[in-house]
Amino acid sequence: MIIDCHGHYTTAPKALQDYRDAQIAALKDPGKPPYNGKIDISDDQIRESLEGAQLKLQRERGTDVTIFSPRASAMGHHVGDAKLSADWTRICNDMIHRIVNLYPKNFIAVCQLPQTPGVPPENCVPELERCVNELGAVGCNLNPDPSGGYWKEPPLTDKWWYPLYEKMEELEVPAMVHVTGTCNPAMHTTGSHYINGDTTAFMQFLTSDLFEDFPALKFVIPHGGGAVPYHWGRYRGIAQDMKRPPLKELLLNNVYFDTCVYHQPGIDCLTEVIPADNILFASEMVGAVKGIDPETGHYFDDTRRYIDASIILTDIDKEKIFGTNALKVYPLLAKQIKKQGIAGTP
Amino acid sequence: MIIDCHGHYTTAPKALQDYRDAQIAALKDPGKPPYNGKIDISDDQIRESLEGAQLKLQRERGTDVTIFSPRASAMGHHVGDAKLSADWTRICNDMIHRIVNLYPKNFIAVCQLPQTPGVPPENCVPELERCVNELGAVGCNLNPDPSGGYWKEPPLTDKWWYPLYEKMEELEVPAMVHVTGTCNPAMHTTGSHYINGDTTAFMQFLTSDLFEDFPALKFVIPHGGGAVPYHWGRYRGIAQDMKRPPLKELLLNNVYFDTCVYHQPGIDCLTEVIPADNILFASEMVGAVKGIDPETGHYFDDTRRYIDASIILTDIDKEKIFGTNALKVYPLLAKQIKKQGIAGTP
Repeated sequence: MIIDCHGHYTTAPKALQDYRDAQIAALKDPGKPPYNGKIDISDDQIRESLEGAQLKLQRERGTDVTIFSPRASAMGHHVGDAKLSADWTRICNDMIHRIVNLYPKNFIAVCQLPQTPGVPPENCVPELERCVNELGAVGCNLNPDPSGGYWKEPPLTDKWWYPLYEKMEELEVPAMVHVTGTCNPAMHTTGSHYINGDTTAFMQFLTSDLFEDFPALKFVIPHGGGAVPYHWGRYRGIAQDMKRPPLKELLLNNVYFDTCVYHQPGIDCLTEVIPADNILFASEMVGAVKGIDPETGHYFDDTRRYIDASIILTDIDKEKIFGTNALKVYPLLAKQIKKQGIAGTP
Repeated sequence: MIIDCHGHYTTAPKALQDYRDAQIAALKDPGKPPYNGKIDISDDQIRESLEGAQLKLQRERGTDVTIFSPRASAMGHHVGDAKLSADWTRICNDMIHRIVNLYPKNFIAVCQLPQTPGVPPENCVPELERCVNELGAVGCNLNPDPSGGYWKEPPLTDKWWYPLYEKMEELEVPAMVHVTGTCNPAMHTTGSHYINGDTTAFMQFLTSDLFEDFPALKFVIPHGGGAVPYHWGRYRGIAQDMKRPPLKELLLNNVYFDTCVYHQPGIDCLTEVIPADNILFASEMVGAVKGIDPETGHYFDDTRRYIDASIILTDIDKEKIFGTNALKVYPLLAKQIKKQGIAGTP
């Protein structure tokens, strides 16, 4: 069984964005009350939004199940206040729950958190509990920069975040560190802000003792860890200069990287420097890059091909990356696979 | 001849930092006039600061000449106002000029610019002219984020920057895109802010037509291009989805990457995806990583070893990377090499 640990619902019916647009429009008019509309999306519309996209690609690429969360670029934590963020987050998480109910063999839920700049993260605990306890979510997406590209929040290693981490440890759910769309004109959402978010978070972890306080806490750094594997020597060297323990010992019981790197030389770099135990298969389809690579004739984001073609990884490494590592990083996953009636073992 | 295109004066005598500290202290006391002290650093102190560091490493590593600029992390464009930035920049550039006069065979100058957040970049033109016309500088360091980690400036592709680019084209000097130390607690100067700055700038270039307006403008993106080569497939794919020309055509007549990547797999990734014509040898010694890699027994930042050991690069590629590319990117370099009496040809 091949588990793709990184998919977002990027193909939602237009009504979802219409709702969001109305919510934001109401916000801009102080005379109006908060938008209180209803979303009318049928099961058939959801099926249609997935059949020609994620489900088709799963079949074509021979991947089995996707750990699926709301569209990351649409989380928009910097828009409006905590009330608006909570409302929007609940709606997005409910959409994922409907998808999992419609296609329990294909998707497993991960939830968005109702973050808001400057609002303490314990604010996210009730929604996290709801998603894990009631909607079957096995993890959450945590945004290290709710300001959307201005980096105004304390680092992820600050005690500011601890109440959320306590709940994550208690519920046994990891977080994927994932920023949302940027409102900073210096940044491009998927081209620089996403990648910078990954690199920034890793460096925050490197300089802290967070995992002494939370030994069971686990983070997946997406997009192949941002710039980190490419600069692994730099990070090993910086840690050494700072008299920190070796990175393996300091971070690799808690920090994992996905395989959303869209060419063979990048995947080769990732797999050469990061132990296979710390790499999780992912494609982020349908996501940042939708086209076909003219150099290969295959989709850029068909990352299974790069892993299959790797001459660096052993067959055992590949098994770990494709599935068994995910069971370790998401402790609730095995139970959820069984509960959703998914056949086979990763 | 091996040219290292990226070195900063990180080992300056304490008196330089003392001056800066006094300058900042005066700034904090509105009752005081701006600091107007003198720096007393002798030629012998400068020699001492370099002999056991950059010069020793040049000899040990068999590199010949370093394109040398003031300490990047100390540029501190976010500190104080334009007057303070101009004063500090002039002092730092004068220090580099003294170094070049003391060791004309070992160093060639690149200048710092007196940037200040929110102040139009044409403000930097007089200092750029002074450094190029009077001090023999062959390039400048351009900070895309003078706010020091909050990214408040327009992207490098905005017309905001055009007056500076006009002067750069006229003077025939390239810029290395290089941020300074960060004042944002979410960022680490050399671990995330530097790398993010590189990635951000590249993505700004990718989404713009800057080089249609300035066909002769050249930028070196340091630190191996941030995350860019590792995610080269992502960038090719994003450009394609946006109906942009292929990256080679769109950017590679104007954008170059240095080799400040501190391990063999990273250098291999860089050299596999970026044409050798667009790679410039650099080490940034003495810089972000000062230690010896226990896995190799050599300095992390001894990047010559990775190029020498490369089985991807041909001998001709290596010649380009070690020297001849620099002559192309820095049009004033050949003349300056001759003027400074440096023997050999790159």
